[in-house]
Amino acid sequence: MNAPTKLPKNSIKTAPQSVTTGPIIGSRKIYVAPPEDPTMRVPFREVQLTTYSEPPVRIYDPSGPFTETDATIDLNAGLPQVRRAWLNARGFETVAGRAVTDADNGHISPENLVPACPAQRPVLTARDGQMATQFEFARAGIITPEMIYVAHRENLGRAAMLEGARERHADGESFGASVPEFVTPEFVRSEIARGRAIIPANINHPELEPMAIGRNFLVKINANIGNSAVTSGAAEEVEKLVWAIRWGADTVMDLSTGRNIHNIRSWILRNSPVPIGTVPIYQALEKVGGDPIKLDWEVFKDTLIEQAEQGVDYFTIHAGVRLPYVPLTANRVTGIVSRGGSIMARWCLAHHKESFLYERFEEICDLMRKYDVSFSLGDGLRPGSIADANDRAQFAELETLGELTKVAWDKGCQVMIEGPGHVPMHKIKENMDKQLRECGEAPFYTLGPLTTDIAPGYDHITSGIGAAMIGWFGCSMLCYVTPKEHLGLPNRDDVKTGVITYRIAAHAADLAKGHPAAKLRDDAVSRARFDFRWEDQFNLALDPDTARAYHDETLPKDVHKVAHFCSMCGPKFCSMKITQDLRAEVLAMGDNERLALEGMAAKSKEFMDKGSQLYLPAAE
Amino acid sequence: MNAPTKLPKNSIKTAPQSVTTGPIIGSRKIYVAPPEDPTMRVPFREVQLTTYSEPPVRIYDPSGPFTETDATIDLNAGLPQVRRAWLNARGFETVAGRAVTDADNGHISPENLVPACPAQRPVLTARDGQMATQFEFARAGIITPEMIYVAHRENLGRAAMLEGARERHADGESFGASVPEFVTPEFVRSEIARGRAIIPANINHPELEPMAIGRNFLVKINANIGNSAVTSGAAEEVEKLVWAIRWGADTVMDLSTGRNIHNIRSWILRNSPVPIGTVPIYQALEKVGGDPIKLDWEVFKDTLIEQAEQGVDYFTIHAGVRLPYVPLTANRVTGIVSRGGSIMARWCLAHHKESFLYERFEEICDLMRKYDVSFSLGDGLRPGSIADANDRAQFAELETLGELTKVAWDKGCQVMIEGPGHVPMHKIKENMDKQLRECGEAPFYTLGPLTTDIAPGYDHITSGIGAAMIGWFGCSMLCYVTPKEHLGLPNRDDVKTGVITYRIAAHAADLAKGHPAAKLRDDAVSRARFDFRWEDQFNLALDPDTARAYHDETLPKDVHKVAHFCSMCGPKFCSMKITQDLRAEVLAMGDNERLALEGMAAKSKEFMDKGSQLYLPAAE
Repeated sequence: MNAPTKLPKNSIKTAPQSVTTGPIIGSRKIYVAPPEDPTMRVPFREVQLTTYSEPPVRIYDPSGPFTETDATIDLNAGLPQVRRAWLNARGFETVAGRAVTDADNGHISPENLVPACPAQRPVLTARDGQMATQFEFARAGIITPEMIYVAHRENLGRAAMLEGARERHADGESFGASVPEFVTPEFVRSEIARGRAIIPANINHPELEPMAIGRNFLVKINANIGNSAVTSGAAEEVEKLVWAIRWGADTVMDLSTGRNIHNIRSWILRNSPVPIGTVPIYQALEKVGGDPIKLDWEVFKDTLIEQAEQGVDYFTIHAGVRLPYVPLTANRVTGIVSRGGSIMARWCLAHHKESFLYERFEEICDLMRKYDVSFSLGDGLRPGSIADANDRAQFAELETLGELTKVAWDKGCQVMIEGPGHVPMHKIKENMDKQLRECGEAPFYTLGPLTTDIAPGYDHITSGIGAAMIGWFGCSMLCYVTPKEHLGLPNRDDVKTGVITYRIAAHAADLAKGHPAAKLRDDAVSRARFDFRWEDQFNLALDPDTARAYHDETLPKDVHKVAHFCSMCGPKFCSMKITQDLRAEVLAMGDNERLALEGMAAKSKEFMDKGSQLYLPAAE
Repeated sequence: MNAPTKLPKNSIKTAPQSVTTGPIIGSRKIYVAPPEDPTMRVPFREVQLTTYSEPPVRIYDPSGPFTETDATIDLNAGLPQVRRAWLNARGFETVAGRAVTDADNGHISPENLVPACPAQRPVLTARDGQMATQFEFARAGIITPEMIYVAHRENLGRAAMLEGARERHADGESFGASVPEFVTPEFVRSEIARGRAIIPANINHPELEPMAIGRNFLVKINANIGNSAVTSGAAEEVEKLVWAIRWGADTVMDLSTGRNIHNIRSWILRNSPVPIGTVPIYQALEKVGGDPIKLDWEVFKDTLIEQAEQGVDYFTIHAGVRLPYVPLTANRVTGIVSRGGSIMARWCLAHHKESFLYERFEEICDLMRKYDVSFSLGDGLRPGSIADANDRAQFAELETLGELTKVAWDKGCQVMIEGPGHVPMHKIKENMDKQLRECGEAPFYTLGPLTTDIAPGYDHITSGIGAAMIGWFGCSMLCYVTPKEHLGLPNRDDVKTGVITYRIAAHAADLAKGHPAAKLRDDAVSRARFDFRWEDQFNLALDPDTARAYHDETLPKDVHKVAHFCSMCGPKFCSMKITQDLRAEVLAMGDNERLALEGMAAKSKEFMDKGSQLYLPAAE
């Protein structure tokens, strides 16, 4: 791994120089073609084991070309255009594109302006009546290359597993989801056509490696980056993107609010293999000098076009924050904590008018459809504390989001719904159930939720608990929370900690839902552990570097990595060692001897009384 | 806070010199007498807020005298004997006590022997027929001082809340628990008499500040310490104890397996205000040179007496690992992962005999009763991987633990039951439900459970998820897992991270269960957050030091701690600021104006269709 030499001190003014590249230790990037298209290169990460008796383990990999062996990355040129040929085949119109204005970068002085990424891409847009979105293609029965790509990507391990001799691994509780044994392109199409999944994929983001967000696919996670008025610049943001996807972020939201945001975004988009989401109202607000009351439809529309042309894949639109709901928040403990929500509430109340996002919603749909920008319908009234969870304001907005979902679908758009926030454990399922009901099973995308408010500094954990649970209940994507939440801006370590925590939550959810292939990796780790294959255990871990470093703190010598014990108990007390010997003995017994032993139990009175319960089904 | 100057390099040979003392920043230790006994001093931690409009927040505090302002701790003398007068009043017999042998410290050479703690205590034991355990007193209708102490301790905040004008805070789902509005000494007695709670309190541990473990009390957490054959000594272990309880460990298990363990334990017990648990089979194994096959009843019994006389409050006894169950583990992915379980399985199989712990269980009860050592019935066959969760071996043992629970109750002993381990989310509730059913609601005490195996280095998080859930479902105590689990021995930072993570899990569980007072602290944090009272937010946090440090990384100046914005959004974009202004406006409206606004919604067709759902009960 090559860390960037050093970030420039005052990076506000500078273009990004380099980013972290190279494989994650103990694995290598591979590209595999799906059976439907031998020219397609779907990325995976593969962990080779130290034993001959097990095949390599294939892992889902959103990290893009940055983790290739000997990766050569030219940030100025942007990433390879994976989708270019597919997009060209669709015959979209190439337009001049909107001219960049000073306002787009917050009227920053020329000497402080970050240059735009020099990589040039044609600006595409759909003609009126021309199909543009994955939703429209899906409804028309057309399987796009993006759908083929996604199907193959989601199937990792499943093909081998189904063919092999292993037992079926899934025994979860899916709460009504329909995770298939095997994902076909047609399954992806049908899920998108039903509105149950989206592939966020702006036609101006050719560098994208397509991925799906939906209840019947692997649970995804999002990482937020973004400079603020107070700190950070372009180089940091691109490195944060690369760093976040390296550890497993499936999408990244650029929440920049300071200056230079148009140009910083150009660097991010041209170098992002994952979908990029934004909250356009943030930039619109910059354009009107920071006063919510001065916002209007024209400046907002202009911002949507600006960002759609750059290639943003999904927009958070807070169209559910309606004027009548504002008073519902007055007695909350923490009022409105969503920035977008508070901006729109301010606007509505000041003008005493219904939200222009709500009133212009169909126009917004028409605009976003032309670029296939997906909706992420924002939850501007999400609770900001345990005290405010599941209150009238929150659920009134959710009902409106359900209404808007149907409007967007009618307009041909892809839609997901944002959710809370801060919710104690016993109120989480109600959120999921209500979202599925109100929003016709459109994918749910939640922030955490945090299950308690008493641990600032550890909110990746308070929220990781809620995220795992809501992922299990049916949430499609989990927005990460870093240890700095509520306190400050995350640094490199915080971003990694947030991403790993959310990969844990997403995977725990997949396991509990009964995803057919999720357990393969757990079992591989467990076998490595039991066999004292330390290197395999490290390399299969979500974070091999940390696992190895922690082991080495106590037993640093290389010889201990093949030792049949570890520092916790030492050689004499190792339960694994004892039980390995034990297993050998039991397996060496004749059948009669073993049955006689098991039979002993049946002879004892107490066991007889309860023994029959042993054979009840697992779901007892 | 005074950190110990420096731990000696080769601390194996040295006695502990000093430990971390002083209050947690932003709070102070207070002692309050319960109404029933003005001489009793029940400890709490109190956080004074920077606003006059809110009372100080009182927090449960297991940290003992170490966190007093100007604490003067003499490790050689041991802690004040809180329980001495109560114990004296019971008229126990004072005996000479068992003579310490070379074997007790693992036959260590004299030059490597850690001296025992010089603090002398009489060795007490109950006469035949004399009541000794909290369970026996409870069954006889007697309320002990320990019960009064515990009742007052558990009530923190509830009295004030019930008297005050605030609404009732509890709205949880308790899955059949019976958490009372207010805890009385009689309630504590009745819970103990029913076997639903225990107060682990050896009559030879006079320094103990009594606490309760039970489904209808606050969820508790345990931290493990202990040297191993490979590393660490006496000074570290005592500091680990003090450090673990400082951050909130309610009990501590000493899992030492190396030499010197008798003498190290003397330092721990004489300086511990929390219950200390051990796994006596570890020391018994040391006494027979580390070969499980050489274990027998005599050496085990000798070890029980040794440790009971020293004051250990609960023993893990793996009496449920029966010979017939051993073959059930042969085809597991990770076999037997409990050290005690593997030792006993090895013994059973080698001798082809039923476990002596199972066969001698009544004798063990008689012995433990005389000192009021509580049982922690060990789950020697707990799953060590997702693959092995909820299998026949695990549940067969749990059924036997249910049988043994009733035997122990008949013998007058206090009992809790240990549980797993590694369990995916969808299989957690089955564990809790089966435990309650099989073991007559005796307190459950689980390790995690870890909800996935793919994140070594982050198992405090994989297990924190499972711990929060099983705590919600009814588990009484959660055994912490540190980031080093599966990899190495935890250091100081790991212990703190493990404890804080488990405090989060326990508190999230209390909230979700609907504990009447749990939400008070969340609400205090949330109000501080909304009011930009940064200092209050830090001081109310589980870890004020980390919260403050994270804030200061981005905005270090003191002026920012009273700033009405933070680094995440900067002053212009602060949703809290906007919403505060908004609230002021809405609250300034006349009733008619506000109602008219809310009424707007009702006029819109879409809202009419769904509006009535707003008023459905929260449990919809």
